[in-house]
Amino acid sequence: MANDSESRIDLELGSWLKEEGKSSEVVISSRIRLARNLSSRPFPNWAQEEALKDIDDEIAEVLLEFGRTGLKRYNLAELNDLEKLTLVEKHLLSRQQSRESGGRSVYLNEEQTISIMSNEEDHLRMQFIAPGEELDTAWQEASSFDDLLDERLDFAFDRKYGYLTACPTNLGTGLRASVMLHLPGLSLAGSIKKLLGSIGKFGLTFRGLYGEGSEAEGSIYQLSNQVTLGRSEEEIIESLESVLGQIKSQEKKTRAEIMAEREAEIKDRIFRALGVLKHAYSLASMESVRLISLLLLGRCYGIIKIEREKLFKLLIKTRPAHLQLLSGGSLPPEERDLKRAEIFRRELAGV
Amino acid sequence: MANDSESRIDLELGSWLKEEGKSSEVVISSRIRLARNLSSRPFPNWAQEEALKDIDDEIAEVLLEFGRTGLKRYNLAELNDLEKLTLVEKHLLSRQQSRESGGRSVYLNEEQTISIMSNEEDHLRMQFIAPGEELDTAWQEASSFDDLLDERLDFAFDRKYGYLTACPTNLGTGLRASVMLHLPGLSLAGSIKKLLGSIGKFGLTFRGLYGEGSEAEGSIYQLSNQVTLGRSEEEIIESLESVLGQIKSQEKKTRAEIMAEREAEIKDRIFRALGVLKHAYSLASMESVRLISLLLLGRCYGIIKIEREKLFKLLIKTRPAHLQLLSGGSLPPEERDLKRAEIFRRELAGV
Repeated sequence: MANDSESRIDLELGSWLKEEGKSSEVVISSRIRLARNLSSRPFPNWAQEEALKDIDDEIAEVLLEFGRTGLKRYNLAELNDLEKLTLVEKHLLSRQQSRESGGRSVYLNEEQTISIMSNEEDHLRMQFIAPGEELDTAWQEASSFDDLLDERLDFAFDRKYGYLTACPTNLGTGLRASVMLHLPGLSLAGSIKKLLGSIGKFGLTFRGLYGEGSEAEGSIYQLSNQVTLGRSEEEIIESLESVLGQIKSQEKKTRAEIMAEREAEIKDRIFRALGVLKHAYSLASMESVRLISLLLLGRCYGIIKIEREKLFKLLIKTRPAHLQLLSGGSLPPEERDLKRAEIFRRELAGV
Repeated sequence: MANDSESRIDLELGSWLKEEGKSSEVVISSRIRLARNLSSRPFPNWAQEEALKDIDDEIAEVLLEFGRTGLKRYNLAELNDLEKLTLVEKHLLSRQQSRESGGRSVYLNEEQTISIMSNEEDHLRMQFIAPGEELDTAWQEASSFDDLLDERLDFAFDRKYGYLTACPTNLGTGLRASVMLHLPGLSLAGSIKKLLGSIGKFGLTFRGLYGEGSEAEGSIYQLSNQVTLGRSEEEIIESLESVLGQIKSQEKKTRAEIMAEREAEIKDRIFRALGVLKHAYSLASMESVRLISLLLLGRCYGIIKIEREKLFKLLIKTRPAHLQLLSGGSLPPEERDLKRAEIFRRELAGV
């Protein structure tokens, strides 16, 4: 890979991951996603290459005009695989979109709090991200941005169904509100499955962000609405916030309980995580997520002294694509594991 | 437990474990044990309390006369359970003898290179220990000590069978020659089982010193002769030395091979062991043996800088009875694990 590619993607943390927001010991970030489509245009999955390109350009023209948001366009055809995967690791590009190339773009602002994909499943997928528990803030931004766009683009809208989308699960508001949660307490107490069972009833979706097992690696989860139709945006957000409130208080209660009841074991897990991260010679990707999660918990308990931002920086910059981009090129998994361990040893030396 | 009991047992390492001997990267120590019985006296298991006491005193009179060896007598009736178990952990008292009390003693010299039990299975079980691969040295000491005793005590000896013993497996020479081995290379290569299979053919016994699984914790093993009858002491020792030579060279070869073929994994295991020992908040007994073993290996590879003596000191003083004696009294297992972790954190802080 050419070296100049390294500079094309900003490898710094987005401000939404860097800054602490409300309840950020449990709620890492809040996110509003809007799905919009242009009327009289075929949905991306049905569109020919020419049509895709036309739509992509029409959107670019409008978005790049919005000087105040400082959006920068990344044409997917011009990004290599590692760069695209880096954006996926930064939670700014969908995995589906990372497999595409021509006629599709992603737009980012400098703070990385706005990510807009063109010609993903819908013509426009716009995400607005805020640190901590700030769904309202994210919604305000999304809504006013959407209003601006609405003046310039002709969105496919139906009086009865609302915004039309490629997949019926997004019909209506086109809204997906989500929060990224860190739930090590519930995870250590073995209560995630129970939680999962009770969430379905509220029309919400709960899934792990890392790993593929039944329990998410690092206890990092995403909670989002499933229903987009028949309810207003505000109702959807309120319903999510109400369940979130419950999860938050359960997580906090559980953290206190497990420390009271299993102090030696919990401290041992946290300090061993530090010991392994500080000394390992080889570290697999998912293991490091699991260990960082324990350090984050140790930080919340006040028994590990380390900045939250540093842990998130380490989390993101040791993901496979980041690691390779930072090393200047493609690396086989075993070498990535050595590189990853080296980074942790260096960065945690003083902890 | 009374505090004065702490001073009754020397908790320092014996010189045979403190000093480095020949090939001590593989052969931790060499040991000669002689079983002897007084003629016209019942074997300990058949003897009444009075007879046991008589025998014990007769032996004491002779042994304590040997000023030059500086033997100190510990009457088992006067040691508490923790003190007896401490001697077991120091490899100076048999587990069987630690369960006994009246009419039985153990004699130790200051360097802890001589341990003599009275009224164990036989009237006399005398052990002579040397650091490293030094069976000859240990045998010379044992032999000259045995000659001295022979002048003062009437040993049960038969022209045809040699020295008579309580159990026929010790008949003849009454000799058990053994070496304590550290075999992390063969263990990591999965070759212990194969080795075990081939050793039986030579009339030798091979067993793990720690743990109860099929693979010994910490890869610490004892190799000893099984046959005591029909061969001279020198023949028994030579045969053991010859097999030992093979194991030693296999272990060394394997250490080099695994480092060449599995460098990242081996280094990772060793450095993680250090990380866990330096940071754990709770450490089980057998886990700490396993981890120290890896540090010893790391020391041999030259990738961990730590004195060998310090590692053996930590190994012995974190065994359950030592730990409790050092803490001033009986502790439940969970508290021992916390105490053990605390010792490792403190002692390894600078490594």
